[in-house]
Amino acid sequence: MSWGIDNLPYGVFSLPGQEPRVGVRYGDKVLDLTAALHDEVFAAPSLNPFMARGRAAWRDTRALIQEKLTSDLSVVERHLIPLAQVELHMPVEVADYVDFYCSLEHASNVGRMFRPDAEPLMPNWRHLPVGYHGRSGTVVVSGTPVRRPQGQLGAGVFGPCRKLDVEAELGFVVGVPTEMGTPAGEFEDHVFGVTLVNDWSARDIQSWEYRPLGPFLAKSFATSVSPWVTPLEALPRIPGRAQDPEPLPYLRRKADWGLDIAVEILLNGEVVARPPYAEMYWTPDQMLAHLTVNGAALRTGDLFASGTISGPERGQRGSFIELTWNGTDPIKLGSGETRTFLEDGDTVTIRATAGDVTLGEVSGTVAQALDVTQGA
Amino acid sequence: MSWGIDNLPYGVFSLPGQEPRVGVRYGDKVLDLTAALHDEVFAAPSLNPFMARGRAAWRDTRALIQEKLTSDLSVVERHLIPLAQVELHMPVEVADYVDFYCSLEHASNVGRMFRPDAEPLMPNWRHLPVGYHGRSGTVVVSGTPVRRPQGQLGAGVFGPCRKLDVEAELGFVVGVPTEMGTPAGEFEDHVFGVTLVNDWSARDIQSWEYRPLGPFLAKSFATSVSPWVTPLEALPRIPGRAQDPEPLPYLRRKADWGLDIAVEILLNGEVVARPPYAEMYWTPDQMLAHLTVNGAALRTGDLFASGTISGPERGQRGSFIELTWNGTDPIKLGSGETRTFLEDGDTVTIRATAGDVTLGEVSGTVAQALDVTQGA
Repeated sequence: MSWGIDNLPYGVFSLPGQEPRVGVRYGDKVLDLTAALHDEVFAAPSLNPFMARGRAAWRDTRALIQEKLTSDLSVVERHLIPLAQVELHMPVEVADYVDFYCSLEHASNVGRMFRPDAEPLMPNWRHLPVGYHGRSGTVVVSGTPVRRPQGQLGAGVFGPCRKLDVEAELGFVVGVPTEMGTPAGEFEDHVFGVTLVNDWSARDIQSWEYRPLGPFLAKSFATSVSPWVTPLEALPRIPGRAQDPEPLPYLRRKADWGLDIAVEILLNGEVVARPPYAEMYWTPDQMLAHLTVNGAALRTGDLFASGTISGPERGQRGSFIELTWNGTDPIKLGSGETRTFLEDGDTVTIRATAGDVTLGEVSGTVAQALDVTQGA
Repeated sequence: MSWGIDNLPYGVFSLPGQEPRVGVRYGDKVLDLTAALHDEVFAAPSLNPFMARGRAAWRDTRALIQEKLTSDLSVVERHLIPLAQVELHMPVEVADYVDFYCSLEHASNVGRMFRPDAEPLMPNWRHLPVGYHGRSGTVVVSGTPVRRPQGQLGAGVFGPCRKLDVEAELGFVVGVPTEMGTPAGEFEDHVFGVTLVNDWSARDIQSWEYRPLGPFLAKSFATSVSPWVTPLEALPRIPGRAQDPEPLPYLRRKADWGLDIAVEILLNGEVVARPPYAEMYWTPDQMLAHLTVNGAALRTGDLFASGTISGPERGQRGSFIELTWNGTDPIKLGSGETRTFLEDGDTVTIRATAGDVTLGEVSGTVAQALDVTQGA
């Protein structure tokens, strides 16, 4: 089963009237880890204290949970709570949030749209995983409504965003910190697991504001993540995509960290894209090596995301700006409707599977913008 | 006196063997607020719990401290600890760190250097305060050594940064949060006070990495702040600089938030620049209005900085890249030496006064880069 013994993602749940605490999803239930393992680290309202324990603890705990759910099932059965009874919360207290730009197809598509007369890729793109910092204070859990942002859409033009978009991404959650001044070691010694990310984007705000310091208000209003963090151990790995030119030594892959994850984007329940994570150019170990090569410290709870996952086919693009070519080529929905960008009331869900392992989905519904008269 | 009853900045200090707690600087001493005011909010290792109380509490506390240090001095005198006996710590637990780009002269200088054939200012610059998110996990207190970062300096080129620079900035610390989806209210209802910021910058890393998503590793290795946060109430205010075109309504100034702060940059003890904060184009109330107009939530501990403070004269430029015109026009030091960018062992100190009020200085010494063979 897709939420079976080989999956076991971690999350934070609460029962009515109780404080949030850490659990593991098993089938349609949550195993209450504080009760099942008698370990107060799971009584915290986030995974952070547990993630800070490090790789050996992650491995041992997973093995222990697997044992409890098989040979000792009769003992822990009473600590399995039906999902329908719980509320799910942000699984992680996010420290710094970094967003990368690792899909060759996504970066090329965006380049073609915005700089039609130039090379689609910037000269640096094949030499390093381009990234930037986002706003960690507005990383929210799946299900949180996302209000359409208002802002400047051009010189003297103010109003609600007209090009509200999503970016389907995979996020990597850091457990083990580093000291400032020293690059991170091996990927699996620092990174605890993955979560799906929807990096909501206001394309009209972005195209006006982004030069020369990058995206700011176009992204900072909301970023949604799954309530479940899937441990690295649960993910089947594949070789990374070929890279040309060969990266500098600090970016050379020491192990296979390509991930064969099939992603789907649903608009109001209908699949509109199937981005393949296996096509990503830069692998997550390369993102981590780059992020810390300058000595930037990691903290427990740091989240870094892949950037939009887009494959070479039209139906594999991970954002509406690509799917509709900046709104010039609307997509047709099953209802007969068409869509360029998101409308109020739209619900976007991103879901994914890695072999038999299902990732926690991330979903959000667009709420109407504030009354704009204050800005007019 | 410059650290007198009209100043009273807040910081976090510790005595040997004791936990860090909140104090106020008065002359060359620190008033231990936990002891003097019998309020456990000051027993925290950061200003955050106190800052979260809001404007009325800030005002009442300041008035109470002023009273204790004048009419009740004999009572609190035993809680005044000589600065020489204490260690100073990060005053704030930084939530999100945002860096703006508010100096017309700085933005114009950088534009002239990097895009000599184009208009120095981007088309958006006079319409909005351009900003981006930085790394909050590497915001460190004055005195922390700053290791020269290594990284990519161009296609296939790896090594220690050769153009290590500073940016002299003023930082604004948020006390009162907002809900996601709702812009902030009045500036002084949210912002607690100011701190000097040194936004260390690796210019060679920056010029290679920054397109199209902005600065990343060029800034994320370290950002230094003063140990003292000066309350807004202590700062004399002046009208902001004239703006053309008139900004959109959400950016219109409702009160005077221009600040007449005289800043100095010292290299190894010698003043090399005197940037005038009064010349800044965008005022801090405009930064806050812009930062939150899209509904981005504020958290207690958010830090937003002005961007480099540069005035129109050469000696008023707030970075070495401007002072030396990207290294082509070295500055001469009193010793007869010249300087383009920073060398290992250099100490940079930023200090400032606002009328009779001295701000806490921010200082840092450049440590040698890691052995680069791992990246070569």
